[in-house]
Amino acid sequence: MGVDPGLVATGFGVLEASPGGVTIVDAGTITTAAAQPLEARLNALYRAIHRTVELQAPGLLVVEDLYTEYRFPRTAILMGHARGVIYLAARQLGVTILALSPAEVKRAVTGNGAAGKPQMQRAVQTVLGLKELPRPSHVADALGLAMTGLARLTGRLPVGRPIVTAAPADGSHRPHSRAAVARRPGS
Amino acid sequence: MGVDPGLVATGFGVLEASPGGVTIVDAGTITTAAAQPLEARLNALYRAIHRTVELQAPGLLVVEDLYTEYRFPRTAILMGHARGVIYLAARQLGVTILALSPAEVKRAVTGNGAAGKPQMQRAVQTVLGLKELPRPSHVADALGLAMTGLARLTGRLPVGRPIVTAAPADGSHRPHSRAAVARRPGS
Repeated sequence: MGVDPGLVATGFGVLEASPGGVTIVDAGTITTAAAQPLEARLNALYRAIHRTVELQAPGLLVVEDLYTEYRFPRTAILMGHARGVIYLAARQLGVTILALSPAEVKRAVTGNGAAGKPQMQRAVQTVLGLKELPRPSHVADALGLAMTGLARLTGRLPVGRPIVTAAPADGSHRPHSRAAVARRPGS
Repeated sequence: MGVDPGLVATGFGVLEASPGGVTIVDAGTITTAAAQPLEARLNALYRAIHRTVELQAPGLLVVEDLYTEYRFPRTAILMGHARGVIYLAARQLGVTILALSPAEVKRAVTGNGAAGKPQMQRAVQTVLGLKELPRPSHVADALGLAMTGLARLTGRLPVGRPIVTAAPADGSHRPHSRAAVARRPGS
């Protein structure tokens, strides 16, 4: 499971590898309402991510590592708040966390450690055999993280394998009332 | 209750106002081990702060507001992780959060919005009638936040009132195994 943390929108993508190929089990974004107080937004994000991690029980949760230069320090600190509750949920559920540098993920997925967002989206689309571009870019980033984590586990990217994309496995998995969970795996 | 969030050390201070004066009900620092993975440190901090907030049931949790310029962006983002799980714990326990700017707290406590840490420590010592300087500065900052929050609630700082400092009310309130909670209210 890859997660791209953000207070406004957190992208997530869950991949499952089998001899027959790689399946997108679940993917989407968790958004919180800017009109809500910070603590309500964090609580909504925490509950949504906790529920998804609990439901999907991933073998690994892959998150973008921190880097040193952020263009918008305040946004980065708010992202830190979001990342904090995501780490907490994963820890509480006993899921191992792997933090990967953005450059490593971009290099693994696109071959270019300095790839831009559109390049990442196209590469994720190609590798996973999606009919459409994964949108928004948070979802593409989360799927890229999940792909790179899968490559770490299996020794190679799931490139060229037959791909099956599945709808969310559990229809009872509803968005939390205060956090909107939108699923757009791009296919 | 005032909280000065940090991943390495979070300061907290709980004040209680009564007709007889202001009591420090509890104060100290929650530290996490740098050798632990980030998720373990956040979990330890979350559990320690959750337990303290649950035990003390404060009427208000006062936290330093974010500002725009941070000298050490990476440290600030890690502080954001810590602040995120603190906000989550308070929200889960139904405690109202008040974020105050550092300048407002310094002005309320010392009369100088640009006061340094030693000046804050001395002012907190004087106002609360402590025998020693509150140490480390995280505890002084947390007590300063609590004092300013109390002033917001009551209309004035608890200056000049007779002060009673109490030991932690509940001996069963032990440090969590993975987070060290040290209580040094400075008296």
